Amino acid sequence: MKVLSKRRPNALELKQIYAPIQDDLAKVKETLKSVSKIDYEWLSEQLRYIVSETGKGMRPAMTLLSGKNFEYNLNYLLPMAASVELMHTATLVHDDAIDKAATRRGQATINSVWGDEIAILMGDFLFAKAGEYVADTQTPRVIKLFSQTLGIISSGEIGQFRGSFNIDQNREHYFRRIYRKTASLFSLSTQSGAILGKAPEASVAVMKEYGDNLGLAFQIVDDILDFNSTEERMGKPVGSDLIQGTLTLPAMLVIERSPDDNPVKNLFKTRDLKYVPEAIDAVRNSTIIKECYRIAGEYRDIACRNLKLLPKTASRQALYDLAEFVVEQGT
Amino acid sequence: MKVLSKRRPNALELKQIYAPIQDDLAKVKETLKSVSKIDYEWLSEQLRYIVSETGKGMRPAMTLLSGKNFEYNLNYLLPMAASVELMHTATLVHDDAIDKAATRRGQATINSVWGDEIAILMGDFLFAKAGEYVADTQTPRVIKLFSQTLGIISSGEIGQFRGSFNIDQNREHYFRRIYRKTASLFSLSTQSGAILGKAPEASVAVMKEYGDNLGLAFQIVDDILDFNSTEERMGKPVGSDLIQGTLTLPAMLVIERSPDDNPVKNLFKTRDLKYVPEAIDAVRNSTIIKECYRIAGEYRDIACRNLKLLPKTASRQALYDLAEFVVEQGT
Repeated sequence: MKVLSKRRPNALELKQIYAPIQDDLAKVKETLKSVSKIDYEWLSEQLRYIVSETGKGMRPAMTLLSGKNFEYNLNYLLPMAASVELMHTATLVHDDAIDKAATRRGQATINSVWGDEIAILMGDFLFAKAGEYVADTQTPRVIKLFSQTLGIISSGEIGQFRGSFNIDQNREHYFRRIYRKTASLFSLSTQSGAILGKAPEASVAVMKEYGDNLGLAFQIVDDILDFNSTEERMGKPVGSDLIQGTLTLPAMLVIERSPDDNPVKNLFKTRDLKYVPEAIDAVRNSTIIKECYRIAGEYRDIACRNLKLLPKTASRQALYDLAEFVVEQGT
Repeated sequence: MKVLSKRRPNALELKQIYAPIQDDLAKVKETLKSVSKIDYEWLSEQLRYIVSETGKGMRPAMTLLSGKNFEYNLNYLLPMAASVELMHTATLVHDDAIDKAATRRGQATINSVWGDEIAILMGDFLFAKAGEYVADTQTPRVIKLFSQTLGIISSGEIGQFRGSFNIDQNREHYFRRIYRKTASLFSLSTQSGAILGKAPEASVAVMKEYGDNLGLAFQIVDDILDFNSTEERMGKPVGSDLIQGTLTLPAMLVIERSPDDNPVKNLFKTRDLKYVPEAIDAVRNSTIIKECYRIAGEYRDIACRNLKLLPKTASRQALYDLAEFVVEQGT
């Protein structure tokens, strides 16, 4: 199913991939910074803190790149791109409070600095700002999709929280969960670009397929990195998922390969953190990482399989390259 | 400033006030119940729990009553009314988690039954549902107002939380705070009814004035009841605001009347809860309650002063009566 013949070797730097939209992505970042310019001085301080580290900006980039394949109207695409990033940030602020996480993107979390109460309210404030920006698209269809996506994400997080330390989950559970928590927002990001670009329905569907599947690939890779990366690189401790009792694909493969006795099962049964390094070793000292990358690659290929139906432009190429980038992270 | 000449004596039962919209308000409640019908069985259970106790339904009633003064299109007003109630419920779920409240509306809170994590995510889910319903109005102006209101509420809650046990707050701080936390949503409720009813701008302004000022009156009365009611009647303990360190109008009047030595100051300085009953007594055994009702009455009058510009209908009368009801609670 390898269809990425258009891949440019050694070109997988985000900066290069973003080239068709780099000026507009800079405008999105300015917009995000403006969120912190509000009357309450001390709230501004916290907001500046949040928006100073906007990560890779992958979601707003996807909105812009998707939109650039169609009628590119920045009056709508700019607030939409800001909106998806703000929704993403809001969910991270709440997730960190729930997980009692201390660091994110290499800096202290809101909850660790200002407490859970402020994290809850700050997340709500960011949802509100995301809602204001999406309203600026003046397009009920994407506004509805925005709210539906937030519902999917939050019910997915509820499922993840409730399923923590539950060993009786299969791959179907896993994929449903990561669809809700990650792929749904990728899907909003790419679909909204197409809808706001007045793309034909078939093209909206292509962008939905891209977002859905690239989101799954992204989360699989993220889950691999939790075993196979370093704290310095990830901005949070290795093994965080295991510590939270979140059963990800690599951990499932550990169980599948040694069903009777394995450190993941022991960890989930006893919640004794001594099994975390053992579980990490079990993943690293096996073909599990490779197998997970292979599965992520399959979703990347599905994501891209119908991009060929779009006009051949630099933005389309950027979507191929971004898909490649997502799956090559950490390899 | 008494302008309520149209008040019907002894008519202040909510059921009677709601008469012009009672069938449609029942439809709103059905809509709210349908929110709990989702795939995840256990999530449904919690949602049923939340939407089973919808309080007085004052906010959706205001949307419908406001709308009924203009072009009454239920296709838009029904989702709008559901949306304001869901937003209200979502903020309560988060507030209770922040305040570590054990009961609300006479039943155990989400956080006390399922924990803070679920309360955070459940609130987010309800915000999302509120967002879906407001999107169904297909009207970018109210959608934007909806998100702006959520921003105002959450930044107001941040201010309240940060200002807790701070004695250096004056009435201006108080009114700004209760505007944000309560009146802004009343204002959304009434304005949206007018906007969706295609009311002329002057009438939208009348409904904004009504919502803004009735919201202030409502919160003043709510703050009185925290001193002057019973746990049975309120569904939460008396003195909750003091325990949370929230400085409300009655407590401010205690300070104003005995600036040098008073139980509110002692409570805020020492956080020793032994001062709570003393502070309650200081309010009850004085003219403070009466003075607060007088101030609430002033806001009620401002709320209603321009209703006379609307056509004389049963719905307009209901708005007068509702304003009267709000300020007569607890008297």
